[in-house]
Amino acid sequence: MVKKTEKTREEKILEITKKIEVLGKDLIAEINRQENPHLDIPIRGSNNVFFDEQNKKIQLGDKKSKRYLFNVAHARRFMQTMLVASYVKKDLLANNLTATLRDLYYAKKHTIKGTKEDTIDEQKESDLAIVDFEVALETFRERLHLRAEPKGRMAGDMVVLDRVRDKVDKIDLSKMGSGGWAVPSIVEQIEFQDVGIEYVLVAEKNAIFDRLNEDEYWAKNKCLLMTTAGQAARGARRLLQRISDEIKVPIYCLTDADPYGWYIYSTMKYGSMALAHESDRLGCPQMKFLGMSISDIEHYDLKAVTIKAKDVDIKRAEEMKNYDWFKYPAWQKEIDKFLDKKIKAEIQSLSSKNLQYISSTYLPEKIAGKDFLP
Amino acid sequence: MVKKTEKTREEKILEITKKIEVLGKDLIAEINRQENPHLDIPIRGSNNVFFDEQNKKIQLGDKKSKRYLFNVAHARRFMQTMLVASYVKKDLLANNLTATLRDLYYAKKHTIKGTKEDTIDEQKESDLAIVDFEVALETFRERLHLRAEPKGRMAGDMVVLDRVRDKVDKIDLSKMGSGGWAVPSIVEQIEFQDVGIEYVLVAEKNAIFDRLNEDEYWAKNKCLLMTTAGQAARGARRLLQRISDEIKVPIYCLTDADPYGWYIYSTMKYGSMALAHESDRLGCPQMKFLGMSISDIEHYDLKAVTIKAKDVDIKRAEEMKNYDWFKYPAWQKEIDKFLDKKIKAEIQSLSSKNLQYISSTYLPEKIAGKDFLP
Repeated sequence: MVKKTEKTREEKILEITKKIEVLGKDLIAEINRQENPHLDIPIRGSNNVFFDEQNKKIQLGDKKSKRYLFNVAHARRFMQTMLVASYVKKDLLANNLTATLRDLYYAKKHTIKGTKEDTIDEQKESDLAIVDFEVALETFRERLHLRAEPKGRMAGDMVVLDRVRDKVDKIDLSKMGSGGWAVPSIVEQIEFQDVGIEYVLVAEKNAIFDRLNEDEYWAKNKCLLMTTAGQAARGARRLLQRISDEIKVPIYCLTDADPYGWYIYSTMKYGSMALAHESDRLGCPQMKFLGMSISDIEHYDLKAVTIKAKDVDIKRAEEMKNYDWFKYPAWQKEIDKFLDKKIKAEIQSLSSKNLQYISSTYLPEKIAGKDFLP
Repeated sequence: MVKKTEKTREEKILEITKKIEVLGKDLIAEINRQENPHLDIPIRGSNNVFFDEQNKKIQLGDKKSKRYLFNVAHARRFMQTMLVASYVKKDLLANNLTATLRDLYYAKKHTIKGTKEDTIDEQKESDLAIVDFEVALETFRERLHLRAEPKGRMAGDMVVLDRVRDKVDKIDLSKMGSGGWAVPSIVEQIEFQDVGIEYVLVAEKNAIFDRLNEDEYWAKNKCLLMTTAGQAARGARRLLQRISDEIKVPIYCLTDADPYGWYIYSTMKYGSMALAHESDRLGCPQMKFLGMSISDIEHYDLKAVTIKAKDVDIKRAEEMKNYDWFKYPAWQKEIDKFLDKKIKAEIQSLSSKNLQYISSTYLPEKIAGKDFLP
């Protein structure tokens, strides 16, 4: 098992390094042919984003733009993309190190010799160059050894093998106390072992993780419990995708009953417009929305503990109603119900019944009745 | 070991339950004497906050206010404080359960029979009643089984025993992979075992945790590594205090070189004005500021990667200069240097040297040279 991880990681580094070399050699060939060196970069604007209904993913289309070195409008970003390529290949992959986008910015920011021009003024620029480079290579930043901010915690009857350099740790997620295991930034190296779970319950809120962990919910119900602590980080999304694909257990999502909760869910499931090029690696199309739904408010008699929707909620709901990935009749009905009643509810509003109502009644009922939204 | 934790937890519950009963009996005695029932509540305003120089803590003074039931200005808050008392005693302590402030709000919010008056309109009200109740009982909310939002991750050569209800988990913090162990909301039940650390390094940023963890810094340097992921959560602060008191190793703090970093540090070390009543339980007076200092910018030749200070930074620095807990000559010099140069630096700016400079050079040099600020 350990050997396998090792090989996989080295293979991955080799694979991406080769891709970068091919890209570099193509550029050199162009230079040798005295052509204007260029990169083909898939367009990421909304006019090149579509919803792939069959695969349930928000995807980039085929449109590409050519970025030339000898073009005043392109030269700066071309140079920045090359700085990214050099940093990724020579500093990160060659040394088997990972870094943040900010590290890259600091490392490659300098004044170009003999000029007053800086290679990078603001991190925004190098961040965009990184995305250009990802899509040009048809890969994602974690494979380039670039880390995003981690967030999220897990507990459940499962062992993960995680590797830091040459050290492989065997982490028993059923023995993480009240804290849980912190979901890392990069999860490519993780392997799953001793899997005793029948589904994954991913909650938007830390408070729900703490409640269900204290109630021993995951042990009693044979599930893996995860909180994303708000909008899910890349590491958490990728890990959910991998669990869905590799362990093949259902993934149920639990958010507040409001448009922001729906957004958190849909981003984890389908990807997002802004990161459409990443849906393949970050989306989790098998995910189901367990709750809390607007219908739950009536069904569980929570009217007294609802919150009046704000204008921004209404506006967001109206937008979402038109998204292709919310066109399912069940979702249209849900959104209409929200727009009609103009109330939202937090998942913690179940505490108005009693503190353990969520683990003793609400979740078991919803799961047994398969009361999900698509 | 396990037995001991169990007893301690039960003892703690018993102790606080008794305190609540005494408070309740005093009120009933007043009622029986036909007096106006009242609570003595320490005043938390800035005119009752002082810096205890000897114990290095921002503390509450002796001033108390009396809150009466039969006083139109007091009655509502008096009632809300009683709701808090009832929830803590009957719902939480009696069942050995914990809850969030929001759970309490939802549980105790209702329309008073025969009126149109709600017990609690907004959570702000019950939150204030909770603080009243904490200070009146001379305790802190974790002992009342109230959870705050958790944040932070840890790794290092140490074992912690953590307990969820009757289950005790033995967590080896040296085998947490790239994620780390998530610091829980409540850490009262935690015990330390097999301690192989010589100091604690607490970093403001997740990115620094990831960098140092990948560089195997904590293993090579026999330290416990923690990130607070921004302003430290209560659980992280309490845990640092307990490690400092019980394991008696130095605690070094690593933040950006800016007033916000100093604020994060000073809150962990001394407590804060707003939570002066909690400094005893959350402060960590032995903590030292390792960096990054404004002086480091010169010393490590980082001028090219500094950031221009904003007006809000300058204003904050000018305020902090007057705080009693920043009156140390070394800090006054540091703040003056900042106000003079008007530049700040992020800890990641060290990545402009090389990615591992922080773990190979910066930290070892600073620690060996005892280059700390008080």
